[in-house]
Amino acid sequence: MATGTETDSATRLREYLAPLEDLRGIAALLSYDQEAIMPAAGRAARGRQEATLTRLMHEGMTAPALAELLDELEASKPSGDDAALVREVRREADKARRVPAELVEALTLAASAGQEAWVKAREADDFAAFLPFLERNVELSREYAGCFDAAEPYDALLDDYEPGMLTADVRAVFTELRAEMPDLVAAAAERSAPALDGPFPVDAQRRAVDMLLARTGFDEESWLLGEAAHPFSSTPGRGDNRITTRYSEESLESLLSCLHEFGHGLYEAQIDPALDRTPLGHGASMALHESQSRLWEVFVGMSLPFWRGVWPELCECFGGLPGGVELEPFVAGLNRVASTLIRVDSDPVSYPLHIVLRFDLEQALITGDLAVRDLPGAWRDGMRALLGIEVPNDRLGVLQDVHWSFGAFGYFPTYALGTILAAQIWAVARDELPDVDAQMEAGDLAPLRAWLAEKVHRHGKRMEPGELIRSVTGRGLDAGPYLTFARERAEGLAAQ
Amino acid sequence: MATGTETDSATRLREYLAPLEDLRGIAALLSYDQEAIMPAAGRAARGRQEATLTRLMHEGMTAPALAELLDELEASKPSGDDAALVREVRREADKARRVPAELVEALTLAASAGQEAWVKAREADDFAAFLPFLERNVELSREYAGCFDAAEPYDALLDDYEPGMLTADVRAVFTELRAEMPDLVAAAAERSAPALDGPFPVDAQRRAVDMLLARTGFDEESWLLGEAAHPFSSTPGRGDNRITTRYSEESLESLLSCLHEFGHGLYEAQIDPALDRTPLGHGASMALHESQSRLWEVFVGMSLPFWRGVWPELCECFGGLPGGVELEPFVAGLNRVASTLIRVDSDPVSYPLHIVLRFDLEQALITGDLAVRDLPGAWRDGMRALLGIEVPNDRLGVLQDVHWSFGAFGYFPTYALGTILAAQIWAVARDELPDVDAQMEAGDLAPLRAWLAEKVHRHGKRMEPGELIRSVTGRGLDAGPYLTFARERAEGLAAQ
Repeated sequence: MATGTETDSATRLREYLAPLEDLRGIAALLSYDQEAIMPAAGRAARGRQEATLTRLMHEGMTAPALAELLDELEASKPSGDDAALVREVRREADKARRVPAELVEALTLAASAGQEAWVKAREADDFAAFLPFLERNVELSREYAGCFDAAEPYDALLDDYEPGMLTADVRAVFTELRAEMPDLVAAAAERSAPALDGPFPVDAQRRAVDMLLARTGFDEESWLLGEAAHPFSSTPGRGDNRITTRYSEESLESLLSCLHEFGHGLYEAQIDPALDRTPLGHGASMALHESQSRLWEVFVGMSLPFWRGVWPELCECFGGLPGGVELEPFVAGLNRVASTLIRVDSDPVSYPLHIVLRFDLEQALITGDLAVRDLPGAWRDGMRALLGIEVPNDRLGVLQDVHWSFGAFGYFPTYALGTILAAQIWAVARDELPDVDAQMEAGDLAPLRAWLAEKVHRHGKRMEPGELIRSVTGRGLDAGPYLTFARERAEGLAAQ
Repeated sequence: MATGTETDSATRLREYLAPLEDLRGIAALLSYDQEAIMPAAGRAARGRQEATLTRLMHEGMTAPALAELLDELEASKPSGDDAALVREVRREADKARRVPAELVEALTLAASAGQEAWVKAREADDFAAFLPFLERNVELSREYAGCFDAAEPYDALLDDYEPGMLTADVRAVFTELRAEMPDLVAAAAERSAPALDGPFPVDAQRRAVDMLLARTGFDEESWLLGEAAHPFSSTPGRGDNRITTRYSEESLESLLSCLHEFGHGLYEAQIDPALDRTPLGHGASMALHESQSRLWEVFVGMSLPFWRGVWPELCECFGGLPGGVELEPFVAGLNRVASTLIRVDSDPVSYPLHIVLRFDLEQALITGDLAVRDLPGAWRDGMRALLGIEVPNDRLGVLQDVHWSFGAFGYFPTYALGTILAAQIWAVARDELPDVDAQMEAGDLAPLRAWLAEKVHRHGKRMEPGELIRSVTGRGLDAGPYLTFARERAEGLAAQ
């Protein structure tokens, strides 16, 4: 029950946090703008603006005034959203307070220098040029991890992206994948349909993306579609849902990519407005966010019913059969499985093995079991063991991803966990929405959106990620449904 | 000479101000995004974010720490940029401190409510519905003016847009305009060329705008062209110069509008980078800013040599003669003079009379000589007396401009002063760049850009506006060159 004291201190805490949330939304806008709009020469000034915002938010989260407000509200034994608010803010504030300001600044500087060095090193296929920057990032990440009391240092890094998840939890799931997936990928690749043949005119893709998004529930009053070199989604504020995609004549990536980003955007858009301007008004974790993007990309966007429903419109967009093939071979082509060198080009069956590799290497770097200079060799060994392919150079190998260049260790696992969670959640959705195939075919995605809103989206961060997963699926993280999906592909079953 | 103390206190003052300037750049980005990018449903959340930024900036400018830094630096008798910095920051800080926080909030709320009411009232041609909001804005503006010790209340309002300019200065210049311009407009309109005949295909206009901007010195590394319902320019940071334009099949407004906004953007882009992240790193005043946009729009962009230089490319953009006419009648058409109901559609000869009317009415509202409810009648009388036209309704009359709806009294005069200053500065430019016509014809605008950088742009706010005007033109504000320009039009002289 809310007492007078609780109400007062809760109101004051919310009033304190609201402007900090405004700054967070502003930071999201700056980042959207930088990737999708800003002229290149604006980068230096933008970097300073971002640093100022980061400092203001950090100051807000470490101020004694906030600690007092939290103590006060906690003393009143809050319940419901107030209790969740205290839990979440205390978690963030405690983390912020444990990291010295000098380390925060060193991390920011090393991230910026590292990213710049990585761009050049990747272009030149020159790992040695990147080595000192990566060594610095690893060193600072170890120092950062040391600020926390964790069972293993990697726990502290993982927790920034997946609150409450332990390295041991990830290891358990990834051990299952490591045991079974290499053989499944090989079998699935062997039985896979051929790739769709381009070129695919960009104008036709643009029309198709507009058509697909209109079908999923993207309305122009509150959604925006932009273009960016690396597609992403961003929600600077309520009613301001932005996604980006990219177009190439060589592939139909834009069609699945826009559904992926729509899934991210829909999560944020369907969070309960009562949580606006509080730290609870965001997706519960990176893995849960990725589960929503993967659900729309893989389980809706690679399914036969969905494409059957849009097939006439799709053919109209392309002025004929897209890729010159009929519906079934088209969907089979979208579902093609093949070992690839590049993570972001890989299919959802081989994808998790790319992450298993990165998870192994990150842990070894952070514990010190692997020296940074030995990373390229370890990468090649891992790719051979997990995906059975030879890495011809570092550009197509260890230098392919941006994440390590800015010190984001602990981020990668959430990608694979997202795919696994998407399979778990989709299995429940199919049970609870028995007509979902017919609905997709009829172009009626409102029931699925409403189900996701009710089960996952509206809660924001009210529950901790693990609790939310249990509340939706009735159990914890479980590779089972994903492995079932992968086994079906290995047995050559067409996409459902 | 910089003493040790001066250096230290100057450094500390700059360090204090730099993050506030970052916030100012961020606010510029938010505003750009809202007008050119953001989905409509994002408005409420964006409004809260803007209010938070405004509050942080206001707190920064009114903090005792800033007052101490200013006292300290002033005590060291600073010179050069340090002296200018103290002058400018003290001016801003003193203004900020004089206005109670409650009044700032009331002004913000009334502005937001007023703008919303105005949109509906204009659409419905219903001044009565807008009346209470406008009355509130007038009342609050009078209260705001009362916070300052000014010879007349309007001085305090004008000073926000045109620092150091007095109502009496504007009145003197506008008295000259009032005496001569109504006859000049009538004569010029009578001898004017016919309007260019549309439709003008939007695709062709887009190509033409790209071509014109490439000619003026717009490079994609540091400039961005967007679209907006009401064109504007914005410079969120160094190297990030943004302009917008709009397209309609009915007119070639986009061609002159893009040059106008380029003029604004070039001013900011050419400010000395040594002034970055200080309050000196902006244009000196609204009128000086408008002088730069008008210089490019009117004195470059309506001139025969400029169009002669781009004529083959322009015809290529339109796949033939634009508007079906040859070069000379084309330029004559761009220079057409005619009394119009709508300020933003008016030509540079009749334009200042629209401003004279608004200046008269604003003063009368602020002194109380005119009741707000009597404004529509006063508007009709003024339009008849100054421009000789009958106003058929309030939508095309007193409700046409957004400014009063958000309480921006004192802003309008800077538009006309900008046109007058543009004529003064252009007269000097022609003297000092005797080859400017040949250069425009050859498409070489670098000498003009460099001259403007040297004389006007690079100084930012180092000089007060009046001092900068004297330094460029050798005298103060002077309607003479503008009247010469208008008389030439009245005599039917073709654009130079």
